[in-house]
Amino acid sequence: MKRFIKVFMLIGLFFVASSLTRPKPTRVVFFGDSITEAGAKPGGYITLIQDALQKKGQADQYELIGAGIGGNKIYDLYLRLEDDVLSRNPDIVFIWIGVNDVWHKSSYGTGTDADKFEKFYVAIIKKLQAKNSRVILCTPAAIGEKNDYTNQQDGDLNKYSQIIRNIATQYHCRLIDLRDVFHQFELRNNPANKDRGILTLDGVHLNAAGNQLVADQMTPLLSER
Amino acid sequence: MKRFIKVFMLIGLFFVASSLTRPKPTRVVFFGDSITEAGAKPGGYITLIQDALQKKGQADQYELIGAGIGGNKIYDLYLRLEDDVLSRNPDIVFIWIGVNDVWHKSSYGTGTDADKFEKFYVAIIKKLQAKNSRVILCTPAAIGEKNDYTNQQDGDLNKYSQIIRNIATQYHCRLIDLRDVFHQFELRNNPANKDRGILTLDGVHLNAAGNQLVADQMTPLLSER
Amino acid sequence: MKRFIKVFMLIGLFFVASSLTRPKPTRVVFFGDSITEAGAKPGGYITLIQDALQKKGQADQYELIGAGIGGNKIYDLYLRLEDDVLSRNPDIVFIWIGVNDVWHKSSYGTGTDADKFEKFYVAIIKKLQAKNSRVILCTPAAIGEKNDYTNQQDGDLNKYSQIIRNIATQYHCRLIDLRDVFHQFELRNNPANKDRGILTLDGVHLNAAGNQLVADQMTPLLSER
Amino acid sequence: MKRFIKVFMLIGLFFVASSLTRPKPTRVVFFGDSITEAGAKPGGYITLIQDALQKKGQADQYELIGAGIGGNKIYDLYLRLEDDVLSRNPDIVFIWIGVNDVWHKSSYGTGTDADKFEKFYVAIIKKLQAKNSRVILCTPAAIGEKNDYTNQQDGDLNKYSQIIRNIATQYHCRLIDLRDVFHQFELRNNPANKDRGILTLDGVHLNAAGNQLVADQMTPLLSER
Repeated sequence: MKRFIKVFMLIGLFFVASSLTRPKPTRVVFFGDSITEAGAKPGGYITLIQDALQKKGQADQYELIGAGIGGNKIYDLYLRLEDDVLSRNPDIVFIWIGVNDVWHKSSYGTGTDADKFEKFYVAIIKKLQAKNSRVILCTPAAIGEKNDYTNQQDGDLNKYSQIIRNIATQYHCRLIDLRDVFHQFELRNNPANKDRGILTLDGVHLNAAGNQLVADQMTPLLSER
Repeated sequence: MKRFIKVFMLIGLFFVASSLTRPKPTRVVFFGDSITEAGAKPGGYITLIQDALQKKGQADQYELIGAGIGGNKIYDLYLRLEDDVLSRNPDIVFIWIGVNDVWHKSSYGTGTDADKFEKFYVAIIKKLQAKNSRVILCTPAAIGEKNDYTNQQDGDLNKYSQIIRNIATQYHCRLIDLRDVFHQFELRNNPANKDRGILTLDGVHLNAAGNQLVADQMTPLLSER
Repeated sequence: MKRFIKVFMLIGLFFVASSLTRPKPTRVVFFGDSITEAGAKPGGYITLIQDALQKKGQADQYELIGAGIGGNKIYDLYLRLEDDVLSRNPDIVFIWIGVNDVWHKSSYGTGTDADKFEKFYVAIIKKLQAKNSRVILCTPAAIGEKNDYTNQQDGDLNKYSQIIRNIATQYHCRLIDLRDVFHQFELRNNPANKDRGILTLDGVHLNAAGNQLVADQMTPLLSER
Repeated sequence: MKRFIKVFMLIGLFFVASSLTRPKPTRVVFFGDSITEAGAKPGGYITLIQDALQKKGQADQYELIGAGIGGNKIYDLYLRLEDDVLSRNPDIVFIWIGVNDVWHKSSYGTGTDADKFEKFYVAIIKKLQAKNSRVILCTPAAIGEKNDYTNQQDGDLNKYSQIIRNIATQYHCRLIDLRDVFHQFELRNNPANKDRGILTLDGVHLNAAGNQLVADQMTPLLSER
């Protein structure tokens, strides 16, 4: 009987020690639109980040959560911030939004004004930072892949990207400037100046190369402090 | 000395009794866009409601608070709900919104999709009802005063008004159907089918007759239970 | 030999007589957008008019020509007026346009301003009337079949229909008020207030009932003088 | 009496000789929108070209005609081509259009689709070239003067400028690439990256510097063959 108790205590001690040495995994939420919704699927950029962590033997150290919904704009993120992000107490939140805020202006007449885009963006960051989440901002990559700024929405995408860059500076957030990363990539790898098929399927949604490029940008930031 | 204390106690008792018999005034917030922002100014519909209460000797029983901001759409109301409404613990909240959600589609490309209009509207009502505020919904009155549904946005305004009517039913809210009230008024009083000048200055913002019509619709609902 | 010549002369006389008694068929051009493009196909309204003439034994008296191109607005008609209509010296021209002028405002940001819609419409009529074509105007039928003016574009469609009605009066053109015909039909036959499936497939393009309704409106006008 | 006749004949001969040695002035039409409408006023670019010709003593050799109307898009030019340009038998026609075709997409929902912009542009050129007018094309300069392609319409303006460049090549027209000229100027002279005030009053309409820059581009082309 006593022996049994001893064994039980030993097992208990093991678990306590284990939980001390193996810390709770870093919880990472990817917050965005249809691009992020697809990112959580096989071949998607979140899945590719998971694969990269696996290779480095760090898969146990991170919990990756996709929180992308198609058609979302900045204010949709704000509406579901509590339910889909804050309630999960994330350590890191990637925010990748903006394509629909610009695109839906011409396709439905329901884009987002620049000043309100900024206002909602800042409101989201403040709520996340108040919960001590580390927030990483991404600029919207592309609506059309032409590399000479002749895609219809290029000016507006540049404008909204600049708003995000300024917010990143002001609120001390890490920035992944996908707008710039994609543009540089297109300058090198899109000599025929095609509007799709290099990093995207349709000018907006990522193909395999696009998902890999995004994953390669995000993975290194997970281990930053 | 003792006598002084007695008097003091009597005064104290008087105030306690007074606060028991004269209840805290009913706090009413008017939540909306530029129409409501103007409503709080001299001649505006909120001011006219205040005047009506004064005449009835009920001015002490109500505290009217204007919370309208120009250019606001449904999601702007949601963003400032906490600061501008919930923080004031209102007993009654009038929500009058929708003109910009429809109008800005064609003037800026930044209107609000119908499904998202509904989603944000419901989110606001839920938060107000959770705080036991009585919520009174208003349909958007007009963008243009022509009485034969030939104003450019008439179809869309009718559509968004129907969304609000359905929400009122579903969430057991009192409805002031200004869209219908204005249309009926125009049928009777706009024989030349003018697009402004009957109830509005510019097709949207209320003139004296418009402010009076709205005040007359709202005042009776204040005393409802 | 002489006999042969006589016969030849008789045949010649017959043809001359024939062309005198059997007049050149009335040439009718249907000028419009995708609805008219589909109208020339089997089951389309132009085909149904042809069927109706056949039944009345009047098929020889008319030559019906479909001249509809998908996506066309009023100024597209103006651009191809010479090539597709005037060059054919039509006796009658049905003009049925307006849906895209309104619709493309919200779907692409490329609709047509009301004043320019009128200006191009009048320019077309003047050129046709200068060639002595009888011009018959049609109002745009529907974008969505809801019968209570809650389809998004109802106000604007009503507005553009009114412009066409006024032009018809001013330029003494026969009018087929499809906007009104469809609305009356929906009031009687769309009790569930559906947005498609009564007269259209998708809210705009005609189903069998819609094609029949339009054909029934147009056929009687062919024999008018 | 005879002497009088002789004198009269001499005067006649003088005029005949004069008209032989002094050829008919080159007639130049400037065809465009509000920018060109303002260009014909004091200080406007057409007036500045006139001044430059005067200085060079060539004022007699050219007749400059402003044909700009505010709010015009490519199809408005097509509609008034006969009345405002062809009827004047111009030797040279500058076409400067495109700002409203892009801008009105977001401000009214009534811009021009890219494929139709091209179609109407080509139709205009063909009609002018059929009358042996020399046609000089201009790309739209700017909607907003920021020099890093962050003006909302920059992508679309670049796209429509590229369409014009391609048309110039295909139809062997001289091109004044104002889009590029302005961009280069802004890179050198707008270090604060302001959105107006360098070459324009409001981002679109030319100030004194803008009018001079345009005049300097156009004047040398008048004497080309």
